[in-house]
Amino acid sequence: MSQHIAQRARNIPPFHVMELLARAQALQAQGRDIIHMEVGEPDFPLAPTILEAAQRYLAQGRVDYTPAAGLPALREAIARHYAERFGVAVSPERILVTAGASGALMLAHALLTEPGDHWLLPDPGYPCNQQFVRAFSGLPQALAVDASSAFQPRADQVAAAWTAQTRGIMLASPANPTGTLIAPAELARIHALVKARGGSLLVDEIYQGLSYGTAPSTALSLGEDVFVINSFSKYFGMTGWRLGWLVAPQACVRDLERLAQHYTICASAPAQHTALAAFSAESTAIFEARRAELDVRRRLLLDGLEALGLQVPARPEGAFYAWADVSAVAADAAVLARRFLEDAGVATTPGIDFVRRQPERWLRLAYTTEVGRIEEALRRMRSVL
Amino acid sequence: MSQHIAQRARNIPPFHVMELLARAQALQAQGRDIIHMEVGEPDFPLAPTILEAAQRYLAQGRVDYTPAAGLPALREAIARHYAERFGVAVSPERILVTAGASGALMLAHALLTEPGDHWLLPDPGYPCNQQFVRAFSGLPQALAVDASSAFQPRADQVAAAWTAQTRGIMLASPANPTGTLIAPAELARIHALVKARGGSLLVDEIYQGLSYGTAPSTALSLGEDVFVINSFSKYFGMTGWRLGWLVAPQACVRDLERLAQHYTICASAPAQHTALAAFSAESTAIFEARRAELDVRRRLLLDGLEALGLQVPARPEGAFYAWADVSAVAADAAVLARRFLEDAGVATTPGIDFVRRQPERWLRLAYTTEVGRIEEALRRMRSVL
Repeated sequence: MSQHIAQRARNIPPFHVMELLARAQALQAQGRDIIHMEVGEPDFPLAPTILEAAQRYLAQGRVDYTPAAGLPALREAIARHYAERFGVAVSPERILVTAGASGALMLAHALLTEPGDHWLLPDPGYPCNQQFVRAFSGLPQALAVDASSAFQPRADQVAAAWTAQTRGIMLASPANPTGTLIAPAELARIHALVKARGGSLLVDEIYQGLSYGTAPSTALSLGEDVFVINSFSKYFGMTGWRLGWLVAPQACVRDLERLAQHYTICASAPAQHTALAAFSAESTAIFEARRAELDVRRRLLLDGLEALGLQVPARPEGAFYAWADVSAVAADAAVLARRFLEDAGVATTPGIDFVRRQPERWLRLAYTTEVGRIEEALRRMRSVL
Repeated sequence: MSQHIAQRARNIPPFHVMELLARAQALQAQGRDIIHMEVGEPDFPLAPTILEAAQRYLAQGRVDYTPAAGLPALREAIARHYAERFGVAVSPERILVTAGASGALMLAHALLTEPGDHWLLPDPGYPCNQQFVRAFSGLPQALAVDASSAFQPRADQVAAAWTAQTRGIMLASPANPTGTLIAPAELARIHALVKARGGSLLVDEIYQGLSYGTAPSTALSLGEDVFVINSFSKYFGMTGWRLGWLVAPQACVRDLERLAQHYTICASAPAQHTALAAFSAESTAIFEARRAELDVRRRLLLDGLEALGLQVPARPEGAFYAWADVSAVAADAAVLARRFLEDAGVATTPGIDFVRRQPERWLRLAYTTEVGRIEEALRRMRSVL
């Protein structure tokens, strides 16, 4: 039987960072000391409050299905988090708990994307977004953004790129791979424009909480009509648990809940029960200490990269990435990343995962490893250059 | 902003069993004693071996991402399970670990289904299957099956229903809602036919291991070209963990792995590490004892239903459901289910979730509650009839 492979599944580029991680792990298995700056996963252990919550839940001895949209107590806790931390009223009904932000993106596009629909995606951006659009036979449209707007889209660019086929725009703040935030006034202009065009605005806030200059904000403050994606992976440090959420307009909740019932049954019950502990004062104290530690790493890395001749043209104010222009020191970032890994044991991610225009210029470095290791990585990278 | 809702998300029927569960839980919250026979989730606590594995994993203090296709050790354990229990050689590479069988169904249809493709789905059947096909703009085609073939498709029916638009057929053995198995010779005929037509055969084996007469079997013994869906939810009792797997032809593995990278990052890491304990001799002894207990419940329920005048025309030999024809005692199964719940505190599922033809005739009862409760449920149902 030769299977027919659907268009969406043919010629998907690999998520290179994952293949690079595999190579780094293989080198490590051979006994090499590898410094990991390639994957968006901090090196912190589980917060003790999270670990204890997981252990308490398990000790009950039952792990049953939850409602499709998530545990009511968790949806309420997320709603309280929006009220207390951002001063935004979000009804718990509008919050659907999902298997990571991935599950939220899948649900949102299942809800919104018809075959042939166009979505504007800032380039550089999170590569999987293209595949969520393509999953539902939509057509991702790269919206080129550059350092002049901190790699965030501007309303005039969105207006110029919008066509009759455009269903909506996705953006992220803080963004991956650049770590940059969108200016609130610009986001408000984009929101107004999308609203006027009858489209949908989908904002990825999975790095919310991890910002180092300005206080965290949410696009939900713009109105009830914005779709917001979030996650327990980054600020809350729960990567492997695979838990996130979608905030949707009230009018879409019933349809989304039915999609979730059919597509997933529910998100992981242990993850949901554990995440109830993520918003306590004790947990917040831990997460804020970690944020301060990430800020120290960030400054160290940015200074170090500059000293190496790698330019970071838009200073990252959030997430845990630096997006470096290597053109002053190397002709091809992919070759450079390979040399960093093979010759110096430093794993980084070449730009090809994240950007279509001039991927050879860009390298993403995650400051997800401790200060001493970042210093060592900088020394090793210098030896290669 | 009035959002455009995609065709696939409009007018999705609710998964009624979930809404009925919500009503049952509401009654319970009011202090009513409800006997749950509506949801496909056994009442057994976590097996001690599973609980201990989860606790051991958590005690390490880290919950990191895993490779997209799953922990290598878990894929190898599943492959060994096929070799040891079924005598079928399956390369670990062909096994992708997913967020429940739901995640496996999503991946399989993302891989195979083009917009406009038809899939043959036995009716009655698992209702979510229609939505996985529709997710990718495919068109589910109901293939009416009846008690004469134990509610399983026959090759001649498949041949008659197959058209140029047909991409493939999904079937389940043991099946939900009927609990019936497909005869191995019939499955082999269907496999040959699908192969001859250049289509895909997707077999749901999530209730594998839960069979009461014949020894469990797998469609993988037919050849490498069959797609098989499986789950840790049912035989292994890990419902709320949301962990399953997909076995795919070798030629599709690379495409599937990339889809999984983009769509999910990975399945729950705690679930995967915990599931490593599911195949041990100690775990198997626990699961086999539970299977024996389910068999006792099955016989009790079947005898009891017959005494009530509810007919079960195809005796369930697997899973944990009885599919009962109520037409001798009631005009509408949905009304009857409502009365069972409201008047007698017995939650059952009306046929409307599972069958298009004559849903008013059918009721699904899950024997997922203990013997004393099933006896009590039978007494209470008698009082209503």
